[in-house]
Amino acid sequence: FDGKVSQRPAKFKYRPVSASSTPFGDSDRRYLTMNNIGYVSTVRNNEQFSITVSFFDLGRYNEYHFEDLFGYDVCFLNEHGTLFAQSKTGQVHYRPHDTLHANWTKLIPLSDGEIITSIAATPRRVLIGTSFGYVRSFNEFGLTLNVEKLSPVVLLTAHEYKVFIVHCSVYQEVSYSLFEQSSTKSVYYQRETPLPVTLPQVLSRNKRSIDAAYEDYNPTGIKSLFFSLYGDPCVFGCDNVLLVLSKWRSNMESRWLPVLDSDMEVWKMTGGNENSDVHVWPLGLTYDTLNCILVKGKKQWPEFPLPLPSEMEIKIPVLVKSKLLEDHKAKLKAQQEERAFDSDLHGPDADAEADDDKEIIIPVNVAAEEEYIRSKVLSSLLTDTIENEGEMFGNENDILGTLVSAFDKALLRLFATACSDQNTDKAFSIARELKQDRALAAAAQISERAEMMTLTKRINDLREARFEQQINNV
Amino acid sequence: FDGKVSQRPAKFKYRPVSASSTPFGDSDRRYLTMNNIGYVSTVRNNEQFSITVSFFDLGRYNEYHFEDLFGYDVCFLNEHGTLFAQSKTGQVHYRPHDTLHANWTKLIPLSDGEIITSIAATPRRVLIGTSFGYVRSFNEFGLTLNVEKLSPVVLLTAHEYKVFIVHCSVYQEVSYSLFEQSSTKSVYYQRETPLPVTLPQVLSRNKRSIDAAYEDYNPTGIKSLFFSLYGDPCVFGCDNVLLVLSKWRSNMESRWLPVLDSDMEVWKMTGGNENSDVHVWPLGLTYDTLNCILVKGKKQWPEFPLPLPSEMEIKIPVLVKSKLLEDHKAKLKAQQEERAFDSDLHGPDADAEADDDKEIIIPVNVAAEEEYIRSKVLSSLLTDTIENEGEMFGNENDILGTLVSAFDKALLRLFATACSDQNTDKAFSIARELKQDRALAAAAQISERAEMMTLTKRINDLREARFEQQINNV
Amino acid sequence: FDGKVSQRPAKFKYRPVSASSTPFGDSDRRYLTMNNIGYVSTVRNNEQFSITVSFFDLGRYNEYHFEDLFGYDVCFLNEHGTLFAQSKTGQVHYRPHDTLHANWTKLIPLSDGEIITSIAATPRRVLIGTSFGYVRSFNEFGLTLNVEKLSPVVLLTAHEYKVFIVHCSVYQEVSYSLFEQSSTKSVYYQRETPLPVTLPQVLSRNKRSIDAAYEDYNPTGIKSLFFSLYGDPCVFGCDNVLLVLSKWRSNMESRWLPVLDSDMEVWKMTGGNENSDVHVWPLGLTYDTLNCILVKGKKQWPEFPLPLPSEMEIKIPVLVKSKLLEDHKAKLKAQQEERAFDSDLHGPDADAEADDDKEIIIPVNVAAEEEYIRSKVLSSLLTDTIENEGEMFGNENDILGTLVSAFDKALLRLFATACSDQNTDKAFSIARELKQDRALAAAAQISERAEMMTLTKRINDLREARFEQQINNV
Repeated sequence: FDGKVSQRPAKFKYRPVSASSTPFGDSDRRYLTMNNIGYVSTVRNNEQFSITVSFFDLGRYNEYHFEDLFGYDVCFLNEHGTLFAQSKTGQVHYRPHDTLHANWTKLIPLSDGEIITSIAATPRRVLIGTSFGYVRSFNEFGLTLNVEKLSPVVLLTAHEYKVFIVHCSVYQEVSYSLFEQSSTKSVYYQRETPLPVTLPQVLSRNKRSIDAAYEDYNPTGIKSLFFSLYGDPCVFGCDNVLLVLSKWRSNMESRWLPVLDSDMEVWKMTGGNENSDVHVWPLGLTYDTLNCILVKGKKQWPEFPLPLPSEMEIKIPVLVKSKLLEDHKAKLKAQQEERAFDSDLHGPDADAEADDDKEIIIPVNVAAEEEYIRSKVLSSLLTDTIENEGEMFGNENDILGTLVSAFDKALLRLFATACSDQNTDKAFSIARELKQDRALAAAAQISERAEMMTLTKRINDLREARFEQQINNV
Repeated sequence: FDGKVSQRPAKFKYRPVSASSTPFGDSDRRYLTMNNIGYVSTVRNNEQFSITVSFFDLGRYNEYHFEDLFGYDVCFLNEHGTLFAQSKTGQVHYRPHDTLHANWTKLIPLSDGEIITSIAATPRRVLIGTSFGYVRSFNEFGLTLNVEKLSPVVLLTAHEYKVFIVHCSVYQEVSYSLFEQSSTKSVYYQRETPLPVTLPQVLSRNKRSIDAAYEDYNPTGIKSLFFSLYGDPCVFGCDNVLLVLSKWRSNMESRWLPVLDSDMEVWKMTGGNENSDVHVWPLGLTYDTLNCILVKGKKQWPEFPLPLPSEMEIKIPVLVKSKLLEDHKAKLKAQQEERAFDSDLHGPDADAEADDDKEIIIPVNVAAEEEYIRSKVLSSLLTDTIENEGEMFGNENDILGTLVSAFDKALLRLFATACSDQNTDKAFSIARELKQDRALAAAAQISERAEMMTLTKRINDLREARFEQQINNV
Repeated sequence: FDGKVSQRPAKFKYRPVSASSTPFGDSDRRYLTMNNIGYVSTVRNNEQFSITVSFFDLGRYNEYHFEDLFGYDVCFLNEHGTLFAQSKTGQVHYRPHDTLHANWTKLIPLSDGEIITSIAATPRRVLIGTSFGYVRSFNEFGLTLNVEKLSPVVLLTAHEYKVFIVHCSVYQEVSYSLFEQSSTKSVYYQRETPLPVTLPQVLSRNKRSIDAAYEDYNPTGIKSLFFSLYGDPCVFGCDNVLLVLSKWRSNMESRWLPVLDSDMEVWKMTGGNENSDVHVWPLGLTYDTLNCILVKGKKQWPEFPLPLPSEMEIKIPVLVKSKLLEDHKAKLKAQQEERAFDSDLHGPDADAEADDDKEIIIPVNVAAEEEYIRSKVLSSLLTDTIENEGEMFGNENDILGTLVSAFDKALLRLFATACSDQNTDKAFSIARELKQDRALAAAAQISERAEMMTLTKRINDLREARFEQQINNV
């Protein structure tokens, strides 16, 4: 029997993990959690701990601090309070940021060998997940509302009445659940569906820089999961790619969209350096911008004190490094020659500029394909939110308008390229995607200038047909 | 190539298993299956077998017995007959309990290396599942109706036209399917969705008492699966927890609810003994009661003759052992001191009582949270049944009424505790959950007595608002 | 840490694979892909390749040939063109069969360690899947339409706007996605649902003839996946069984039906030879016929030149080899005796016939069960197509009529057998399944002849009841 067991694969090691939390590493302090609101850190001093809750918006919140006798090792920070838990004893502790409301402490039943792996709290709900898959929900004052069993939980987050859970089976299959549970609504959007994050095993096989210490601390490598400002589920894995779940309210239409390969952005920033020591640590997603900490050095995770947050615009990963590098080198060479020429004329004063040039700039025509898809993705996310929740900040329909313009503008660039290749079929297939009549008019002009008369006619026919349809729809 | 194969994980070993069946162990007899109706046992005598079908309701059924020349090793017992199969040869044999209807025998095609793993029979349908995932359905006389392929089957059960299948992939991921297939209806409620049972691997890792011989006999450790009296799917795993699938007719709302941790109940019965030699062997679920065999001794499974069935009321696992033990010890100590005092007065005559005291009794206020959630769970299960099937036994709506009372009564206790803590917010959040106006009235009184005037006002406002709403809904 | 990794299971090795593609083996040529339309082959000559695209319909298409400087190793052939990709560099190349439309070439971004595993192209869409689970879709001219992330892709195919993807997780769990994505419709019918193909691991455990070289080339062993002529998803695994997904448009009703065990057919063709050297290589499914290449010899896959395609009628796997063999041997023995007798009379001239006799012929009564289920399966597939797409070739409703007749005819044979066993209950349960009134009339006659008067009456009552219902439905 023993022999049989030893042949089995190493089982998944469940660990207490929170969004953007970091290991102690070789220090005595670590971040218990981090997000758009702030960060919670703990300092170990012999067997004692002291915890600090810090905020990015210093005008709205005051940092606070307390001695932790229980060794809380999982944490969730929301706009009203902070939830803590001790993974082994099952002690849970909620602390509102203000002093109007009472703290509360509760003990969660755990079986032999079971630990609390992840917790979440919104102003309405508290959720506790364990390594055996028990998910307990409570109201904001600690009254038990539900106990259910799912596959073992590795990470969870919540927003209002929505809960997003990542599971990992004993044999390392990663899945997720997404549900909403209020007094009037109880619906599972997804139940233990495979979650397509790239796992550390895949990366380490490919000898990419995976930090063994971090993988040991957090075996799925998922650095954070959160809901975006507009309420869409997001996950940031060990491949440093940000995935957003679009159309998640419909089981039949939802898709995980890669909206940022932050390694690629760092690569571009550092002029194509494959071994740069800059790492991105995620905080949250606000419309089209990832808030994050830029970590410099050997460690992937931020240390103390925390650098100021940075912003990184999302980019759909459609560009090819080798091609960019080729263009970049050609451009550098041209500049160098020009500079050599200038230097001959004016003397060596352009060194500072040389460093700036290191960043890889995407040529406008190459960037157009990414811009057009990004506008499409952002439109689709925003439309879904507006249709289901209405405008949240009052400017969503304006943003949608801007996105339509950006979409058509980027497509027109692709259209122009197809015209300059005299590729009528491709050009017309691009024109068909244009949304505004004035964009179609511009396409007709471009084709005319390229002397592609058949194409011009097809575009004008399309404009006519759309016009007819519009009238008929009135 | 060989080297590569040897690195692979040990593959799952498919075995013929039936609900509540037991291995031979070191004896020559075993139970082929067991449920609320009765049990089927087989005796091995050299290469011959003899089978006995026994019933709990001796007034309704007569035990019967026959020589088994084929070595049937999978079995299913329903109210009309018994289905047998030989896992390797593919021979299937159906025997009605009465003699009005004919026996029938059939041969199932099996590929090289494929075995029958589990079978089920209702008065309408016969189902045969194999280790390769072939699921064949027949009518009650053995006419083939369907052949389909799913993931490998480890266990299946059926009720009327409903089928509940547990699958296990070669690499040990456990999932389940739930479907209904009659001449007028063919619908999958779930298809190969992860089944959140705790696996033996998890328990053995945690050094909990898992019987290696049983795990070898039944590698998923699932002791039984069945439909409850009201038709809800149930599963009883190797962690001795009973899970019920609530709202299973809706893919978007179904959830596995843990409704009994039988180890916890044994622990309470034996005064907090972590190493008691009492084990629970499941038979079936009747409303709020698990029918089971209490097994005493080293083996987890029942031996011969079978002890009389016991009943165990379901309990939602929300209580924490360490806390109960603390209370219990304090109580014991108080009693001991009292008894020492009594004994001083009357002499040592209270020894018998001392043993009874060993059972851990849950204090009323602590029990209230469990009671309130249990009432909620039972209401939700029963409401779903009534809405979809109508009343089955004619008293379901009465039971629902009782559950509402129990729910409010338990909540009022929690409300009173919050009041005695002067916790207005929590108390009001509890009041909001109350279902009956008279319960709200009682809450208002309790808060008044606690001199929490704001709370009283909020509750009375809530009563008013509900009253208005009720009138508007007329 | 290293020690821990070495205990892990061997991870799945992602490979570039196309439908019905073959490895080089020990030769310098292989088939890049193969289907109902034709086949694409490549010849390796030092570091150079040359590719030939060949067609089965020589009247419609002309074979063509080109030098391949990039080493394309994945391929998809449709009626309009051929799509190629180089799995490691990410280069994608589309070539229309005619010369009216332009070729195009595109570079796909790949991360470190990521490869293109499978590609597909229809006249409307191009799809590229990778080992990291990125699925990129393009229009027919290479304009990017979507980038999404799923579980790692091992195989994909497409038809019009429908896409069928097979995934395999790092730990070898195989699943599939099925979706449709046009400008007006975007729906997932299935998302990463377990795919019940039998895996090579299962077969090799059972010592069945699995070719290690092929398993190394294509680790899931899935030889092909395609859409049938009527648009139903099909998969042909390493167990040489063809599975069709029925009612795939409805998530709640879809099922994988085994419609052909080609090993069984080869076994029958070769007179029950368990070790025949004939293998079936799949091309596509046309209504009830698998188009395939019959491969003879030690290798499972076809070599050069390609044998002419064969046709194999589908058969539902319900027959049991041991039983067929018994009947067959009895028949052979009878024939032998007869022949011995004839030979005594006419001398030894019947040797040629003796070989023909080797094929196992299924007795009519035994075949009836298979025929009845096959008619049912084909009706169900065709009905679903007609209801959703209308008639595709204009004769679908005629075919449906023929299927109903075949269904009733086969059932009547089963009915007659039940009558000759005097099994009233079973006979009536079969009669209930009959679809046409004239079939019920025939059943009544058969039962009358068998002098089963109760049965005759029940059948006539059933006819009456159906007649009433029909009138009421008018």
